[in-house]
Amino acid sequence: MDPEILVSVKNKVQVVTLNRPNKRNAITGSMYKALTNILRDAAVDDEIMVTVLTGKGDYYSSGNDLYNMGSANSEDPIREAKASLFAFVDAFINFPKILIAIMNGPAIGIAATTLALCDIVYASEKAFLQTPFIRLGLSPEGCSTYTFPRVFGTSKATEMLLLGHKMTSLEALKHGFVSEIYSSNEMLEKIWNKIYGLTSLPKDSLLHSKRLLKMFDKDSLVLANVKECDELEFRWQSEEFQNAVLNFISSKTSKL
Amino acid sequence: MDPEILVSVKNKVQVVTLNRPNKRNAITGSMYKALTNILRDAAVDDEIMVTVLTGKGDYYSSGNDLYNMGSANSEDPIREAKASLFAFVDAFINFPKILIAIMNGPAIGIAATTLALCDIVYASEKAFLQTPFIRLGLSPEGCSTYTFPRVFGTSKATEMLLLGHKMTSLEALKHGFVSEIYSSNEMLEKIWNKIYGLTSLPKDSLLHSKRLLKMFDKDSLVLANVKECDELEFRWQSEEFQNAVLNFISSKTSKL
Amino acid sequence: MDPEILVSVKNKVQVVTLNRPNKRNAITGSMYKALTNILRDAAVDDEIMVTVLTGKGDYYSSGNDLYNMGSANSEDPIREAKASLFAFVDAFINFPKILIAIMNGPAIGIAATTLALCDIVYASEKAFLQTPFIRLGLSPEGCSTYTFPRVFGTSKATEMLLLGHKMTSLEALKHGFVSEIYSSNEMLEKIWNKIYGLTSLPKDSLLHSKRLLKMFDKDSLVLANVKECDELEFRWQSEEFQNAVLNFISSKTSKL
Repeated sequence: MDPEILVSVKNKVQVVTLNRPNKRNAITGSMYKALTNILRDAAVDDEIMVTVLTGKGDYYSSGNDLYNMGSANSEDPIREAKASLFAFVDAFINFPKILIAIMNGPAIGIAATTLALCDIVYASEKAFLQTPFIRLGLSPEGCSTYTFPRVFGTSKATEMLLLGHKMTSLEALKHGFVSEIYSSNEMLEKIWNKIYGLTSLPKDSLLHSKRLLKMFDKDSLVLANVKECDELEFRWQSEEFQNAVLNFISSKTSKL
Repeated sequence: MDPEILVSVKNKVQVVTLNRPNKRNAITGSMYKALTNILRDAAVDDEIMVTVLTGKGDYYSSGNDLYNMGSANSEDPIREAKASLFAFVDAFINFPKILIAIMNGPAIGIAATTLALCDIVYASEKAFLQTPFIRLGLSPEGCSTYTFPRVFGTSKATEMLLLGHKMTSLEALKHGFVSEIYSSNEMLEKIWNKIYGLTSLPKDSLLHSKRLLKMFDKDSLVLANVKECDELEFRWQSEEFQNAVLNFISSKTSKL
Repeated sequence: MDPEILVSVKNKVQVVTLNRPNKRNAITGSMYKALTNILRDAAVDDEIMVTVLTGKGDYYSSGNDLYNMGSANSEDPIREAKASLFAFVDAFINFPKILIAIMNGPAIGIAATTLALCDIVYASEKAFLQTPFIRLGLSPEGCSTYTFPRVFGTSKATEMLLLGHKMTSLEALKHGFVSEIYSSNEMLEKIWNKIYGLTSLPKDSLLHSKRLLKMFDKDSLVLANVKECDELEFRWQSEEFQNAVLNFISSKTSKL
């Protein structure tokens, strides 16, 4: 069986590829834990200066795998899911190396929100962001209640987070959420060259400067993560969520 | 006599329409109090999930009615005006339901600044924002000294707040201050459909998520409201303001 | 010898022009001190309502003059450079009058970062911003680790501050970092007229409103200045910086 996540390191650049293309790279409970550990290990690995997140196939990631959120044999699946989500987002917030996302396709839910915690986002011209939390009876995570209003403006961020407005990579570029868009393999190649070029820069200078850049938002991001996870703990146990999941599953089933 | 404000509720959407079209929907002292009470009542009314603010006629609102700011028989009109302004802005800051503005035309002064306190702003392509406080010897309110630099950038926000730069709805869209622009009745119809669609979303999920979205700025907004009202208390009593009002009135009179 | 900085005051507008066009208006150690004193004096000079910063020739300023950073006879050049930089940036943060930059050409390094501390920036269509700190083994200053992510978005700001991405004045306009672009002498003339027009506005109203506008970021800006200067103190003494400077000088020399 193919691994769900591919990891490689070359010339101080670690590439982490979500590898469930036939599931639109949806993130399972075990993948949350694996990704958290990958980031934690990379944080203290001297051979890694830059970590790149990307996806295999058409999607960057469709977010939470609603069919595979908890472990089957957990005693307290809500508590476990909450701890797992918190740790995952926290690993982004505290990542001390340069964290780059290449958004090769659509990013949904937590895959979209955690992009705002990366240092740089590059995106395919066909990619878009979407966060349909409310429709599912849930609430925003990944610190998006803090980051999205700051980068997109309150009105646009609210349309995204509450109404599920789809934001194209071109629009995201205009807001500075995305740094560059590629529309061909040649352009993607140049982006990879730029990323590998980072490793020839003075390392301390690069990483200490990143630390400064993140310093002013860190406390707010940690607080956002706490408050969002607290809210989700309630949402997951709500009737609204249970009804929404039943509707979601029955609508999928009815398409078969 | 037509009421100055029209209020209706249908399908959990409250529509509040400024209804002084021949006065460009300028807001009088009594309208401040009425609008504050409308928001406070809607905040605790279970039949209301969404409140929409809009204006009748060509203007959204021309802001403060300079001819009708205080009550005629007040013992301390400055203190009363300050308390009234503070409560009005505070009702926006603390509004727990979804607050949407449909900016049907130009928004001036406090009508422009309070848009930044709404969750979502939709705007006519002919609308614009303008905040000519300084020319009148006054100072910004509605928390705009906090919100405008964050959404428009410091340089652009300063041109708006200090020099009275006119911002078109198209430019405001680019900054995420406005979420969508309409240029026809069909497009406006779609926006109304989207607003009524909000009420079919899970209610707790929607309103708890809004609370999270507003959490990080709330203390700063309250502080901004306090400091801006304190400053205005001085401005209203200043020679600069008195001269500016005299000039304003005599320039209007000379046009007759 | 021509003075390195030209200063004039007319109708309450002070114009400060960097005047080393053949050195791309690079800022020497003595110019830092002179500019700091100019701002400090203007802060308390009742004859000055507005200060305009601009450059003579093709560049606004190429930033730090790497050949002339410290004084030759200083006992502790690192400590002196740090104190000098801190005071320079602090003079921007605490400037109580209206501070406007006319970015007549490219702004590099500290000349770029301090633009974000001005109230309004106007720019030539040919101008651009660039902050190549890391390539030189250094780290961002001028509070840019705080201001740039807020105005440009985290991703775009990171590309600028860590990778040295060149930002054109047109792109800066879209983010609200620049308020207006000029492409002809006529347009520049109109900008000057707008600046002189500021002085006919009610003075207290203008300056008290500026104070409100700056209030919410001041503590963070002071902290950013402290932390950035602390980091630079280490950078200046690092092997990375010494190697980068040697490379820089030898590359310049090899072109002769």
